[in-house]
Amino acid sequence: MSQAIQQSVAVNIKKNEAFAATAERLIPELFYEVCRPQHLIKVIASEEAVHGWRTEVVQSADELPSLALGKGDEVILDFGKHLVGKLSLHIGPDGSPPDAPLFLKVTLGEMPVEMGESFAEYKGWLSRSWLQEETYHLDVLPHTLHMERRYSFRYLKLQVLDTSVKYKVTFDDVSCTTVTSASPEMIVPLKHPDGELARIDEVSIKTLEDCMQEVFEDGPKRDRRLWLGDLRLQALANYETFKNYDLVKRCLYLFAAYPTDKGLISANLFMKPVVIPDDTYLFDYSLFFVASLSDYYEATQDMDTLRELWPTAFRQIELSLERLDTHDIVQDDNSWWAFIDWKDQLSKVASAQAILIYNMKSALQLATILEDHNQEFLQLRIEQLTAAALQFLWSDKLHYFVSGEQQQISWASQIWMILAGVIDEAKGKELLVRLLEEKPGLSLSTPYMMHHLIEALIQVGERERATLEIKKYWGQMVKDGADTFWELYDPENKNFSPYGSYLINSYCHAWSCTPSYFIRKYHL
Amino acid sequence: MSQAIQQSVAVNIKKNEAFAATAERLIPELFYEVCRPQHLIKVIASEEAVHGWRTEVVQSADELPSLALGKGDEVILDFGKHLVGKLSLHIGPDGSPPDAPLFLKVTLGEMPVEMGESFAEYKGWLSRSWLQEETYHLDVLPHTLHMERRYSFRYLKLQVLDTSVKYKVTFDDVSCTTVTSASPEMIVPLKHPDGELARIDEVSIKTLEDCMQEVFEDGPKRDRRLWLGDLRLQALANYETFKNYDLVKRCLYLFAAYPTDKGLISANLFMKPVVIPDDTYLFDYSLFFVASLSDYYEATQDMDTLRELWPTAFRQIELSLERLDTHDIVQDDNSWWAFIDWKDQLSKVASAQAILIYNMKSALQLATILEDHNQEFLQLRIEQLTAAALQFLWSDKLHYFVSGEQQQISWASQIWMILAGVIDEAKGKELLVRLLEEKPGLSLSTPYMMHHLIEALIQVGERERATLEIKKYWGQMVKDGADTFWELYDPENKNFSPYGSYLINSYCHAWSCTPSYFIRKYHL
Repeated sequence: MSQAIQQSVAVNIKKNEAFAATAERLIPELFYEVCRPQHLIKVIASEEAVHGWRTEVVQSADELPSLALGKGDEVILDFGKHLVGKLSLHIGPDGSPPDAPLFLKVTLGEMPVEMGESFAEYKGWLSRSWLQEETYHLDVLPHTLHMERRYSFRYLKLQVLDTSVKYKVTFDDVSCTTVTSASPEMIVPLKHPDGELARIDEVSIKTLEDCMQEVFEDGPKRDRRLWLGDLRLQALANYETFKNYDLVKRCLYLFAAYPTDKGLISANLFMKPVVIPDDTYLFDYSLFFVASLSDYYEATQDMDTLRELWPTAFRQIELSLERLDTHDIVQDDNSWWAFIDWKDQLSKVASAQAILIYNMKSALQLATILEDHNQEFLQLRIEQLTAAALQFLWSDKLHYFVSGEQQQISWASQIWMILAGVIDEAKGKELLVRLLEEKPGLSLSTPYMMHHLIEALIQVGERERATLEIKKYWGQMVKDGADTFWELYDPENKNFSPYGSYLINSYCHAWSCTPSYFIRKYHL
Repeated sequence: MSQAIQQSVAVNIKKNEAFAATAERLIPELFYEVCRPQHLIKVIASEEAVHGWRTEVVQSADELPSLALGKGDEVILDFGKHLVGKLSLHIGPDGSPPDAPLFLKVTLGEMPVEMGESFAEYKGWLSRSWLQEETYHLDVLPHTLHMERRYSFRYLKLQVLDTSVKYKVTFDDVSCTTVTSASPEMIVPLKHPDGELARIDEVSIKTLEDCMQEVFEDGPKRDRRLWLGDLRLQALANYETFKNYDLVKRCLYLFAAYPTDKGLISANLFMKPVVIPDDTYLFDYSLFFVASLSDYYEATQDMDTLRELWPTAFRQIELSLERLDTHDIVQDDNSWWAFIDWKDQLSKVASAQAILIYNMKSALQLATILEDHNQEFLQLRIEQLTAAALQFLWSDKLHYFVSGEQQQISWASQIWMILAGVIDEAKGKELLVRLLEEKPGLSLSTPYMMHHLIEALIQVGERERATLEIKKYWGQMVKDGADTFWELYDPENKNFSPYGSYLINSYCHAWSCTPSYFIRKYHL
């Protein structure tokens, strides 16, 4: 997810101190690695390349210290892979003693386009403060510049805005100390006979690794928050790879520690300066606490956590049920928001109805394990909501689920109804195959929704088609240069950005890391 | 002086460890004071104002914390007086939790023009890195931003380049911790009946105070180095005001500690990362070591220092005499440089000849005190150089001293010949009065050369005229808004800059601080 959803609600937070303390105790060990640039490169405008920019190696980065850079000079360094960490630059003077400060601009980018296009031209609606660039005045040289902020990048541009006519500068050492809470030792090599899937798995794992910090972040370049919807998918990939169960547990406790006084869980948490629940509440994200807890229990059998967090999970169901109208259908009005996908025109009612049912089924499983008295209630309401969905959201005329007053057909609605089991497996298979055949209505925008398409295909037994779709989507992203998977990707419109500029897109994004989950869990 | 003189010489430095250790022991105590802004102001284009900008108070700075600033908003703060120190800004969020970093631009200026004109337009030839502006990305709010560098300013502009649509920021506290090695307790109030002179004295003292740091800096906004020519004038003002004799002593030892292997003293020293003598050597500046030592002895009667530094001083005379041609006149060619004044067309031969004689007379005084065997040699050579000056540099036809092949008449040549006593007091008086009457040839560019005009007027007994000229020059600067005296000032061309832009001029500059010396020493 991302931070710019505008639904803000004035609420009172009722902090659960015990849960917060548990989360605090689970702050993960961090792993560090020092990386150095591989190449000096240039970026070249190219119509074939994504966003119109490709890179070309100029020389080895070993040559960097021998280059003296004066006013107006610049170099672009390629670290050879995506990194999340802090930069250090050792800068020396060359010539007379420096008689004026060094005025230096540093630009970092995950993609060649960030090296090629000027950030000054940025006109997106998301804050330009996410664009990774800094300027420094260094009064004394030599100097080791330890850049304070953490960056997410592969490419680094150093521009000497000014020195003086009497001296230039050299960059004697440039390094990045990367950080992650993912232990590389936990990864079991895949050794997949299909090289393309093996590569997709590698890139997925790197994506997850770079997003695993003190929490599961959604994107280390931008935002850096703990979002519930992203957490759910990261956790699934994590169970098949790094197996950092405590990090998932920590995140669940964090969400449970900061509900509203009604018990509603925020869509995301800020981690600094202290933990702050965002004032954004999303119908689907709050509900995914239930599924996430269920997935966690399935992976760990951690009954203590399940027992402790169950009331929080069940409360999300109760609050969501309050949104139903007299027909047991989720009501659409201006007082709510569901994410579903990055698609402005998307009617979210049908997907939200299905997501509610989906999570109620997770809740029922947990209630059964816990022998909770709400089992019967859940069973009854699942049946009622399913019946309502079939009665009011299925169009016999259109042969698709429809959403909203406009009877909108969208892929999201079909996929979620299948995932929620509103129709049986056979009908689901027929619907999904027909959907991919006929391609009606609103398609998918994000790797997040693509994940759910793949999950649905596997659920209805279409494993080969699932593999094919993974290759068509994530495989094409690899071919387009991804060394971590991107927040947004539309093979038909590679410049797509919901923010008005692809410069601000995140190119290492948590919700895109799930191919490893599919490939490893389902042995694709 | 300033840093951009291009004469660089490849030399070997022969460090005197004992002198360096003495200088190190004399690192001064520093005095700190916390200052806060007085007003929120705006700057307004105005044809009457210096550089075309005046300020207008908008409201009290006490109102600042109540202002929430979003993308594109800015405030300008006026601290009410010139400051040298470090800034701290306490910045808080206003609105939803900050979901994007704050992108902040901070611009500092000594003059309204630095608030009014964009630094992006700067086209001077001095490094733009001296323009005082910084940008910051702050990931976490609230935050106290302790800006690392030391600034020289009165005005502070805060521009919010971006936040996000969900929050703004407030500046809850803004403060500057000033620093100086000048103890305010040492100042004896002047209580001068002439209010204008009293104010000129105040501004002079503030100028000196802000330039007194770990050494006598030439200008705290730019350069910040120890220049010998500036040191000499600062020391004179210091003896009449702050009386920090040890700081002068420290600076003399610093210069003496880093001569070339021939014994030549650099025009200036860099103080960081370690003491480094600049590779700029100026004929006049090296010689002024002699006058500076003589002034120091006169102020302190510190015979130990005199005895220890005398060989260094005498060596400057010896080396300067090597520049004489067979007629005992300073040779002009491409292998030397003298500063004299910021005036490109100025022929420097006559001034240099006079400055050599001037310092030889200082040397003779010191040699007499020390009973040094070079007294006779100095006496003889002073007479020979004086005779040569009168024979070859005085024009009977033009009735002025002339310089160079073009027989150039300049004010600098006349003033220095008078100060050197090449002509007697009566003739000097006649020459100087006629100079100010006829205004021939090249006039003066800097407060540095203005100082020498005033000194010459006093020397020939024209005290009233000296007072008048101080008021016409420094008094007019005060009327034009100076709260410290400027590096450059031409009442006829207030936009003058030798650097191609008045944005980069220094508006608190050591060599401009000497009115207090004149007013207090000579009871003007």
